[in-house]
Amino acid sequence: METRNSRLFSLLEGKVDAVAIINGGDSQIDHNFKYFTRARSGVFEGSTALIGPKNTAVVTSVLEAPALKGLGVRVSVPKTRKQLEKTLVTLFSKHKTIGLNFPSVSYESFRALKKAYRGKIVDVSEEIAKCRSVKDGDEIKKIAESCRIASMAAEKIPGMLTEGMTESQLAARLSMALYEEGSEGPSFSPIVSFGRTSAIPHYFPGKVKLKKGDFVLTDFGGKYDMYCSDITRTCIFGKATERQRELYETVKSSQEAALKLIKAGAREVDVDAAARKVIDGSSFKGRFIHGLGHGLGLQVHDGRPVLSPRGTEVLKEGMVVTVEPGAYVDGYGGVRIEDDVVVTRNGYRQLTTAKRELIEV
Amino acid sequence: METRNSRLFSLLEGKVDAVAIINGGDSQIDHNFKYFTRARSGVFEGSTALIGPKNTAVVTSVLEAPALKGLGVRVSVPKTRKQLEKTLVTLFSKHKTIGLNFPSVSYESFRALKKAYRGKIVDVSEEIAKCRSVKDGDEIKKIAESCRIASMAAEKIPGMLTEGMTESQLAARLSMALYEEGSEGPSFSPIVSFGRTSAIPHYFPGKVKLKKGDFVLTDFGGKYDMYCSDITRTCIFGKATERQRELYETVKSSQEAALKLIKAGAREVDVDAAARKVIDGSSFKGRFIHGLGHGLGLQVHDGRPVLSPRGTEVLKEGMVVTVEPGAYVDGYGGVRIEDDVVVTRNGYRQLTTAKRELIEV
Repeated sequence: METRNSRLFSLLEGKVDAVAIINGGDSQIDHNFKYFTRARSGVFEGSTALIGPKNTAVVTSVLEAPALKGLGVRVSVPKTRKQLEKTLVTLFSKHKTIGLNFPSVSYESFRALKKAYRGKIVDVSEEIAKCRSVKDGDEIKKIAESCRIASMAAEKIPGMLTEGMTESQLAARLSMALYEEGSEGPSFSPIVSFGRTSAIPHYFPGKVKLKKGDFVLTDFGGKYDMYCSDITRTCIFGKATERQRELYETVKSSQEAALKLIKAGAREVDVDAAARKVIDGSSFKGRFIHGLGHGLGLQVHDGRPVLSPRGTEVLKEGMVVTVEPGAYVDGYGGVRIEDDVVVTRNGYRQLTTAKRELIEV
Repeated sequence: METRNSRLFSLLEGKVDAVAIINGGDSQIDHNFKYFTRARSGVFEGSTALIGPKNTAVVTSVLEAPALKGLGVRVSVPKTRKQLEKTLVTLFSKHKTIGLNFPSVSYESFRALKKAYRGKIVDVSEEIAKCRSVKDGDEIKKIAESCRIASMAAEKIPGMLTEGMTESQLAARLSMALYEEGSEGPSFSPIVSFGRTSAIPHYFPGKVKLKKGDFVLTDFGGKYDMYCSDITRTCIFGKATERQRELYETVKSSQEAALKLIKAGAREVDVDAAARKVIDGSSFKGRFIHGLGHGLGLQVHDGRPVLSPRGTEVLKEGMVVTVEPGAYVDGYGGVRIEDDVVVTRNGYRQLTTAKRELIEV
């Protein structure tokens, strides 16, 4: 049976003998730690996982050790800082070449390893990203459930809107709806913007009050068993003007054009270009100011694939990606529509199912 | 007026000309970026802040730039990867010595800087941690509001308990209560444990059902304007047995012993020892298996102070710290009581106010 370890080592083609995932403090946790150990809880600050082709060893604290029970991982719990260093050196020195994830390991951890370990240290971030980018069946099930939850919450948005409510109130209600549907909580700080603020793609909800005729843009997601969803819907609080409808339908067509191209073997850059062409061919030319989509999994920005003009790869079966074109008019407002899909051999399966037609509340 | 920049540079005593905070991907974001820029929204993946004694320059993307409006920060938005590198090199090369936060900068970012920059690179993590550890008035106000919110939610726990409910259901209700009280959301994944599972300090809520006589341990917190709270309460679902009461009162006395010592000038290690002495002098000797407390602020584990046997510093006025003794009996259950306090000249001000007496539901 293919395990995550064996998949990684087949991608590594003998480049290293073992791969170390080294966590730092609480804003320095590498998601690969949980990916390879399959731990479903715990924070694992300052913990290290050493991944071999067939097994995984973890050095951690007494607080985190229970989360690794029954996972087939060898666990060491050194009691002092000195013992910790000794345990790591013993573990590492069995291998001639060790791979690290250079974009996530801190310089402090790298330097400490370099001091204590005589072997060769190699960057394996490319292979790790490739391994993570194709989801296994278990991961797809969890992402699908996470997307179902987010879709149910999205369907409730029109019913949540009342004149004069603030963006942050709607953000709180959305987050609560995720819990009600069975999520562990939001996968990121939700974006909620009313009216003109919808023209700022990464806006943070504030005290702006909902008025008749406003765009209501909501970009949010939940977590289910650690896996993320990410969905955006834009509706109108009231009757849409002609221009609002034109903006909405342009973005919707842009998304449809991109979706048509998605299948295993499609080039990332082509999928992005298809969406961009629709917007740039309309009266909203140049208003699509971000990439079309990103990988989705343990992280809400899961690295691969990259649907953008900078994408250099092709899509593979089992990749999960967001498709989220948007068009933004400064001082007026913006529309974004985002869905999550899993790439199949001949197309894609849509994981977020909330209605995409323009809703006038 | 003392700014965060000037405070940092007075701690640096001429060691460097500028400090760079370099963010990587979404699990590689340094909280110092928001601390120094004061941005209240945005993610700032791949963004860099260059902090001088009097001003701050940021290199970021068009998506994040709006979050820096009106903050007095110089913002550059390079359009291509090449332009980005050029902007950074121009910015950095004005300085002979640059300080980095070695525990948070990735080895990849460090290596790229090392290649492009001819000056000296120095670790300034110690000075940054010191700067962050003493909170300014604005920060204390936000943490206090975050603690008020968490306390209100904690007071509601007894009313949430029903026989047969699961730990994850209670975790969801707790998180919802935080939103209802005005929080932006949880400051970390809440710990909720029933009965025997309360003996695992970092437990993750699961499908365990609430039974009469169980310990109910809840450890959670909210965020308010980005600032965290962190509170733990343990109650009994039913009438406490003599042993449960003994365990509870031992932990409560342990917390009181520690609180008595807290004031500016107290040694971290002494405060921890006072709490430990109470538990080790009881029939629960050796059951307090973690440190007494940690700093609290933008991060729920905010680095300093460190109330533990490994603490080496003294408390200072304006530090915010958790005080959370616990005692855990494998296969039986555990009790932890946690409050957040701000250190004052002669003592402390308690920020979490939920009742600490044993509650039998």
